[in-house]
Amino acid sequence: MKVFTTIHDMQTEMIKLKKYGKTIGFVPTMGYLHDGHMSLLKKARQENDLVVLSIFVNPLQFGPTEDFSAYPRNLDRDKEIALNERVDYLFCPSSVEMYPRQPSVKVVVQERIDVMCGKSRPGHFDGVATVLTKLFHIVKPNRVYFGLKDAQQVAVVDWLIKDFHFPIELIPCETVREEDGLAKSSRNTNLLEQERGEARHLYKSLLSAKEMIDDGERDRETVIQFITNYLLNNTSGSIDYVEIYSYPELKEMTMLTGTFIIALAVKFSHARLIDNIIITI
Amino acid sequence: MKVFTTIHDMQTEMIKLKKYGKTIGFVPTMGYLHDGHMSLLKKARQENDLVVLSIFVNPLQFGPTEDFSAYPRNLDRDKEIALNERVDYLFCPSSVEMYPRQPSVKVVVQERIDVMCGKSRPGHFDGVATVLTKLFHIVKPNRVYFGLKDAQQVAVVDWLIKDFHFPIELIPCETVREEDGLAKSSRNTNLLEQERGEARHLYKSLLSAKEMIDDGERDRETVIQFITNYLLNNTSGSIDYVEIYSYPELKEMTMLTGTFIIALAVKFSHARLIDNIIITI
Repeated sequence: MKVFTTIHDMQTEMIKLKKYGKTIGFVPTMGYLHDGHMSLLKKARQENDLVVLSIFVNPLQFGPTEDFSAYPRNLDRDKEIALNERVDYLFCPSSVEMYPRQPSVKVVVQERIDVMCGKSRPGHFDGVATVLTKLFHIVKPNRVYFGLKDAQQVAVVDWLIKDFHFPIELIPCETVREEDGLAKSSRNTNLLEQERGEARHLYKSLLSAKEMIDDGERDRETVIQFITNYLLNNTSGSIDYVEIYSYPELKEMTMLTGTFIIALAVKFSHARLIDNIIITI
Repeated sequence: MKVFTTIHDMQTEMIKLKKYGKTIGFVPTMGYLHDGHMSLLKKARQENDLVVLSIFVNPLQFGPTEDFSAYPRNLDRDKEIALNERVDYLFCPSSVEMYPRQPSVKVVVQERIDVMCGKSRPGHFDGVATVLTKLFHIVKPNRVYFGLKDAQQVAVVDWLIKDFHFPIELIPCETVREEDGLAKSSRNTNLLEQERGEARHLYKSLLSAKEMIDDGERDRETVIQFITNYLLNNTSGSIDYVEIYSYPELKEMTMLTGTFIIALAVKFSHARLIDNIIITI
């Protein structure tokens, strides 16, 4: 595995590989890798000649009151995992390398950022879209892999690729879960022990909602109210949002129909967790 | 010369050519080609295997009260000029092709847009940066050619390429002028006859200012005042701005030093003209 920390070296190498006609599968991450990331790397390994992993905790996508400094980091452990997953190239630049000064240009997401994490985290998706634009130019992937746990992020990447005509195929991948159903996340490590026990109820609430819908419930508000009550009764966290929209458009709906996402975010003492389920009826 | 009107066909062709290792010189324009554009095409012809010209009057870079519909267009004439200049590929998409719906993402310029044309034309450079991001992905040029008449645009493209790591070399080209010094511009065609006579004074005012500076004047405000008076005395247009900044940073300066730009914009009855001179002392 080759490790690069400068944009110039990484981009030069990728341009060379593209000339040889190699296909590149890219998994952009903020590191502290877990089984979710590993499933993305495995899929990239199957589908491409070369696998590129980036690890960069992107300051641009954290708000001033968010957990940028508390975001867990462990590059040595990540490198071992990357080696095990047969990653060919690891790109792990510093913040100064990626943003040597206040950027003169940025990407702004202007669609459906008033819902879900976009509403709770103003500027977050601008930061995501900006760093991905940079990374896509540096890595030049044929395919890029994202987990559906961040379903709004997947939608934003879909818009970014389509609106800007990036010649890249987006591969959304299923959320990987702990045995008790908790979605794998680097932030789980910041849960208190009691909170870790409660956290399984996030997914349980979504599964129970799915049962209601399978049984015929079609009223959006009823489902949201059910999940909200479930979370209030079963966790000590504070609910950031429980929302339902069409997917991937993220448009409003009052009666449930077609393909839609039920998404939620709950704030525990040192970790804000998100989860979702995408249902087609 | 091959002519493409769809993004898909153009991008597919360019990806194919890049695989053969061809270098691509790109001249993005809004059409109604004049000698200024021709000088860009000639330079691109000299320096690359293939020359790509795009013609697209980009609605995103016009304000609601600006001259989008009055902007001159003549595609048949442009095609003849392109043929004469040995252009290999002409890309001339429709507005609907480029913007089938309200874009979900856009590029925003956040540096030095409070000066010169950025101040007079809010959102203009966001529109320029957004359409260029799209065009760069479609055309995949090695080199891109811009005229220095739009010096702030050249600065913005420089930031766009550097901040987003586009693997593209920016080639700024000297302003081409009429015999009497008026900078060539598609908008000159919208001048009234009397205004066309006066318009030569835009460049004359800049040359006179350069003489003052050659003779030792170093006070920014004195030079601006001189040009303002000159334009008031010699043209019927209304002055939009006369400004001086360091170049290409476009930073404030009170005493003239290093490399700087003297830039002006004058509004005539149906055309707003810009011109500038870049001086190093």
